[in-house]
Amino acid sequence: QGILERLDAGEIVIGDGGFVFALEKRGYVKAGPWTPEATVEHPEAVRQLHREFLRAGSNVLQTFSFYASEDKLENRGNYVAEKISCQKVNEAACDIAREVANEGDALVAGGVSQTPSYLSCKDKAEVKAAFRKQLDVFMKKNVDFLIAEYFEHVEEAVWAVEVLKESGKPVAATMCIGPQGDMHGVPPGQCAVQLVKAGASIVGVNCHFDPDTSLETVKLMKEGLQAAKLKAHLISQPLAFHTPDCGKQGFIDLPEFPFGLEPRIVTRWDIQKYARKAYDLGIRYIGGCCGFEPYHVRAIAEELAPERGFLPEASEKHGSWGESLSMHTKPWVRARARKEYWENLKPASGRPYCPSMSKPDGWGVTKGARELMQQKEATSEQQLKELFQKQK
Amino acid sequence: QGILERLDAGEIVIGDGGFVFALEKRGYVKAGPWTPEATVEHPEAVRQLHREFLRAGSNVLQTFSFYASEDKLENRGNYVAEKISCQKVNEAACDIAREVANEGDALVAGGVSQTPSYLSCKDKAEVKAAFRKQLDVFMKKNVDFLIAEYFEHVEEAVWAVEVLKESGKPVAATMCIGPQGDMHGVPPGQCAVQLVKAGASIVGVNCHFDPDTSLETVKLMKEGLQAAKLKAHLISQPLAFHTPDCGKQGFIDLPEFPFGLEPRIVTRWDIQKYARKAYDLGIRYIGGCCGFEPYHVRAIAEELAPERGFLPEASEKHGSWGESLSMHTKPWVRARARKEYWENLKPASGRPYCPSMSKPDGWGVTKGARELMQQKEATSEQQLKELFQKQK
Amino acid sequence: QGILERLDAGEIVIGDGGFVFALEKRGYVKAGPWTPEATVEHPEAVRQLHREFLRAGSNVLQTFSFYASEDKLENRGNYVAEKISCQKVNEAACDIAREVANEGDALVAGGVSQTPSYLSCKDKAEVKAAFRKQLDVFMKKNVDFLIAEYFEHVEEAVWAVEVLKESGKPVAATMCIGPQGDMHGVPPGQCAVQLVKAGASIVGVNCHFDPDTSLETVKLMKEGLQAAKLKAHLISQPLAFHTPDCGKQGFIDLPEFPFGLEPRIVTRWDIQKYARKAYDLGIRYIGGCCGFEPYHVRAIAEELAPERGFLPEASEKHGSWGESLSMHTKPWVRARARKEYWENLKPASGRPYCPSMSKPDGWGVTKGARELMQQKEATSEQQLKELFQKQK
Amino acid sequence: QGILERLDAGEIVIGDGGFVFALEKRGYVKAGPWTPEATVEHPEAVRQLHREFLRAGSNVLQTFSFYASEDKLENRGNYVAEKISCQKVNEAACDIAREVANEGDALVAGGVSQTPSYLSCKDKAEVKAAFRKQLDVFMKKNVDFLIAEYFEHVEEAVWAVEVLKESGKPVAATMCIGPQGDMHGVPPGQCAVQLVKAGASIVGVNCHFDPDTSLETVKLMKEGLQAAKLKAHLISQPLAFHTPDCGKQGFIDLPEFPFGLEPRIVTRWDIQKYARKAYDLGIRYIGGCCGFEPYHVRAIAEELAPERGFLPEASEKHGSWGESLSMHTKPWVRARARKEYWENLKPASGRPYCPSMSKPDGWGVTKGARELMQQKEATSEQQLKELFQKQK
Repeated sequence: QGILERLDAGEIVIGDGGFVFALEKRGYVKAGPWTPEATVEHPEAVRQLHREFLRAGSNVLQTFSFYASEDKLENRGNYVAEKISCQKVNEAACDIAREVANEGDALVAGGVSQTPSYLSCKDKAEVKAAFRKQLDVFMKKNVDFLIAEYFEHVEEAVWAVEVLKESGKPVAATMCIGPQGDMHGVPPGQCAVQLVKAGASIVGVNCHFDPDTSLETVKLMKEGLQAAKLKAHLISQPLAFHTPDCGKQGFIDLPEFPFGLEPRIVTRWDIQKYARKAYDLGIRYIGGCCGFEPYHVRAIAEELAPERGFLPEASEKHGSWGESLSMHTKPWVRARARKEYWENLKPASGRPYCPSMSKPDGWGVTKGARELMQQKEATSEQQLKELFQKQK
Repeated sequence: QGILERLDAGEIVIGDGGFVFALEKRGYVKAGPWTPEATVEHPEAVRQLHREFLRAGSNVLQTFSFYASEDKLENRGNYVAEKISCQKVNEAACDIAREVANEGDALVAGGVSQTPSYLSCKDKAEVKAAFRKQLDVFMKKNVDFLIAEYFEHVEEAVWAVEVLKESGKPVAATMCIGPQGDMHGVPPGQCAVQLVKAGASIVGVNCHFDPDTSLETVKLMKEGLQAAKLKAHLISQPLAFHTPDCGKQGFIDLPEFPFGLEPRIVTRWDIQKYARKAYDLGIRYIGGCCGFEPYHVRAIAEELAPERGFLPEASEKHGSWGESLSMHTKPWVRARARKEYWENLKPASGRPYCPSMSKPDGWGVTKGARELMQQKEATSEQQLKELFQKQK
Repeated sequence: QGILERLDAGEIVIGDGGFVFALEKRGYVKAGPWTPEATVEHPEAVRQLHREFLRAGSNVLQTFSFYASEDKLENRGNYVAEKISCQKVNEAACDIAREVANEGDALVAGGVSQTPSYLSCKDKAEVKAAFRKQLDVFMKKNVDFLIAEYFEHVEEAVWAVEVLKESGKPVAATMCIGPQGDMHGVPPGQCAVQLVKAGASIVGVNCHFDPDTSLETVKLMKEGLQAAKLKAHLISQPLAFHTPDCGKQGFIDLPEFPFGLEPRIVTRWDIQKYARKAYDLGIRYIGGCCGFEPYHVRAIAEELAPERGFLPEASEKHGSWGESLSMHTKPWVRARARKEYWENLKPASGRPYCPSMSKPDGWGVTKGARELMQQKEATSEQQLKELFQKQK
Repeated sequence: QGILERLDAGEIVIGDGGFVFALEKRGYVKAGPWTPEATVEHPEAVRQLHREFLRAGSNVLQTFSFYASEDKLENRGNYVAEKISCQKVNEAACDIAREVANEGDALVAGGVSQTPSYLSCKDKAEVKAAFRKQLDVFMKKNVDFLIAEYFEHVEEAVWAVEVLKESGKPVAATMCIGPQGDMHGVPPGQCAVQLVKAGASIVGVNCHFDPDTSLETVKLMKEGLQAAKLKAHLISQPLAFHTPDCGKQGFIDLPEFPFGLEPRIVTRWDIQKYARKAYDLGIRYIGGCCGFEPYHVRAIAEELAPERGFLPEASEKHGSWGESLSMHTKPWVRARARKEYWENLKPASGRPYCPSMSKPDGWGVTKGARELMQQKEATSEQQLKELFQKQK
């Protein structure tokens, strides 16, 4: 059954987790470029991660083609040991995802994301051409549906949806925005309306913000669609990091990004709360993004097991709410084998010399510079560098 | 070259990370029992983790045979889908480790750890028999050397070393104790002395405490050996969690164990500090235990690259000290591409409603009960349960 | 010179601090009722606190007549050892303030605040009668000007201003509201407009929120006045507690109110930042409320000494920015004798087992109950108690 | 009845709080020098503070003669507006304390503290002469007993006790040390023994450490005395700041000292716990030092009211365990009117950008310099400055 059949039937669809962060920690992706050449260089590592998400309960395996547009790969090409073509990366991504999907009950989704071309003010045709290049591979490999994800500007997201719709396959669209809206100031409700009008059947958010903030944004999208009398399925794929302190552009601006985010990692219990809240809000495609490990996805599946009627395979190795501790030799550890315990725990950071919140960076930078960047007038690295120097 | 040849020659040997925690998150190990039946059930997952540690720089691959003594596997047998024999688990562990070791320059170490038999007061012969059963497999599979690890009582650790020494192979021994010493009150210095006298060539600690606390303990061991005019190589394999607040028995007693430890996870920069400190203390076998992911092991290898003269394979996907951020489009993210930045960052938890330290559990339990347990007089679960009830 | 002459001439007027909190800690005011019978029972204690504020730089001494309306004193009369008349309390408050004001260059301001009559839905005439009773005393004792302060509902504040205006004396009006507006939902800008139209020459906020939040609210008031093309002087008298986590009704709802607020107390350096920010915002009447001790008022005076051209008397016992440490025997303490040090210090709480933020209470209470209360429909204690019971 | 009669009879004697910190905040004492010229300059302020402590339950009023030795006053003389003689300061201190003591049931204690003479290596005779000068005043004014307090070196404390004993009056001695002992490394148990042998009838600690740490130190003193079969009454007068993070020399070395300690201020409930713990440890002279305000002293008196059979005067304005909130209009505030609430509250700091612990300063300074200072070899400011420069 296709993605829309499932959602139309009222099924809960569980997404997968974050590839670039998980594979960075495993040694196969470079932070900074965040490009997916690992599909060619180390397919076994990508395959294993897909498999873990599948076991954890994912109904969708996204091809590992994040930032795999040609312009992005070239832009960051110096990081790739030997030149690998955009086409090869995307093809391998499709093959691996399909191979693992066939091991279980999962759909394969081909994904495109925001492009350097857009940020450097290339015109609509050029940006669309970049998406089309990836789409060609997805069509050849016959993915089940398509996702336009990780867009900061609704304008570019709409262009992506328009391209993906040419395929005739179902299209989902997620933006990496918070309640304040996109980088040009378009509020979430309006973003959702534009995306649905462009052809997306599923809309929501991914990345950049923590589960709570992301759900707030999806709520605004939902309200926008209702006001416009439009119908669409809702999706949320947030970070697995707590980011109550981030500004408009999300966790990128936090001083801890990307190499000091550990103390912000959410627990499996945080995810169970998130899954319940998402469900209650009417979201039926529930997954995760950066920071989401297989056990986080399993937590979604376990929380919603009563509604779905089954547990994922990986729950064989997990007792609900810590019940596997009930045999521990220490009575006080056995006392942790219950729901109330983990639900109410306020986990300590073990870091008494660290604060609990940070001020996002970019505040020291003049408002002018930020606006320039956000308005695409700072086209070159050089210009930015000069602006930055001037302000110090 | 064998482990002792390397250490005698002054080489730095990098250990691997924590299997049970990493594979729990990946969906292959159950928290609570923490047993390694995955070697038989899902060899590809175990193989992949070994491979990641190898790429990250590990010179030793430990067989995934933690808690794989027969008594432990039986004790927790109900968790294993279909009954798998102790021998099969250990054999598969050896085969997988050797297969991956052959892909690079690594040694295979067979490991034994503390047994339920000892805790339930079985006699010396019986406990030794349990170790011997695992040793038989290690000899058959011809591992390179042996590790007795995760012992809370030096008495049992000595028995383990004595058994392992029968093999003629080099033996390392690590206890999961802190500066306060073993559960019978034997201080670290004396533990080290007893272990070396029993035949261990390498002594130190693993698990239960964070890097700083663990190094303190190894320092006390070193001083004990010096006072006794004994020579041995030093090893440290601590947690990758910050635990400044734990008591004598380490992180098990923290309220966050094992499902709420996320905010305590150490960063790669914390590990670089740990590696440097360990090196300065004279430790030459430097690895990790629970919580150590491949990128933590890579951090050891990167910190000590000047001394070793080379970087691990996985550093292809990592710029030292964040240099891969130097091309970021945002000037304030580019500003993070330097050592001083990450060295001095005090990462926020993103959890303003949580504290920074916890009181270890077990404090509400009367001193009597804890002592009983520690002195092995509380032989049965039932007795413990009664004690615990009485105190509530 | 009167208050308006000073403000019209562009002078900075420094208010005083919080009497009920300071005298509660000194043993003369009871938390809960917060009534000022100390003016009769222990005039020496009230006099001494006035004197300390005067020395610290206060240009206005407010009569200690907070909650000294007849209905409030009766309501809480059981706390007063022997029955003291409303008139006596207010008269003594005027006499003491005048006596100390004469020791320096300060004005005396008579103050009224919100009444139980209003909250229990008495009609306008009755509420105004309560204010008039206090005003009679202020006129008899010839205070220099009048303040209507600590109002949660702009409707009642307007009534108070109308009564006070009958006197012909200048009137200031401050509400204890945050950026979300008054308890009926009137936004700060509109509150300010209504108060100025009712006759207030000076408008702003006092109590309930920390300096930063209070300045935000005054900013909104300023913008409201500008939009309405009205002119008035601005005043801010915030808490000396950090309350970034409080909801619409301010610090009353924080779990720490009123006996666990210590870790939130602001430093003198926090106050210097507040004074500067208030000044930059165009506020010229700058003081404090609950938690403000004499040294906090001195910090306002020291920060604005360059603008005002002089230091307060109490600065004889204070070196600016810690310079009095420059003679300390320890070099590292001497190193603290400079502005940058104190400006940048992030002071530790010394409480690793406590969080940094709290969730306001009243969240567990149904929205219905809160709204009832806020809309004055819950007229009796009994009704509230029943509502509360039902919800538990 | 004298101090010893009371203690011998098993009475609990409640001390007073911290004068220099309280009067600094009120504007009469300068941080840095911390000298008590206010007794002459502003006797009304000193008198008022004494009175507040008396009302709060203090049975002892200490003359405000801290750091009032001639050498100290001269050393810091530049801070005193017009030269005031040591004798005048001490005499006024005695007169004020006696005047207030006569208003209730309190004893007057004359106090001496550590001298610059000792720190700059003057000989025993010279140091003793300094103490004798203050003692002469105390004898002329006929104080009830004597306290040698705030000594970091037991050697100097012993000299002080010897001088005070010449008077024939009872002598108490408190050191400002922690569990690690005095600055020459003498452990607390030995310090206590030496002080009792020198003639002190009451021994313990004051200042520098928080209540918990101070009680630990007194416990060690008690054990030392028991081991030496000596008898003495015990006293504790700790800080009212949480300082779990301080090193050997206490809160002076914390980066927050003295102008950023606010978030560390203890609550009245913390003090009730302290009073109970002190009582259970056998301490019968229980008071406070820096940071202790009148309401903290009242908390001691309220906690021990069951044992003593009465409440202090100031409890007229305080309901035990928050009972005064039981009439609040908000149900959730009324819910705070009970012991369990305040006992279990973990008060938030309201400072999410601040840590919970600090590293003491002086760590960057070479061990050599600290030792020099502690061993009195760094006699001059100049020498210290040079050392400090060299290390930077």
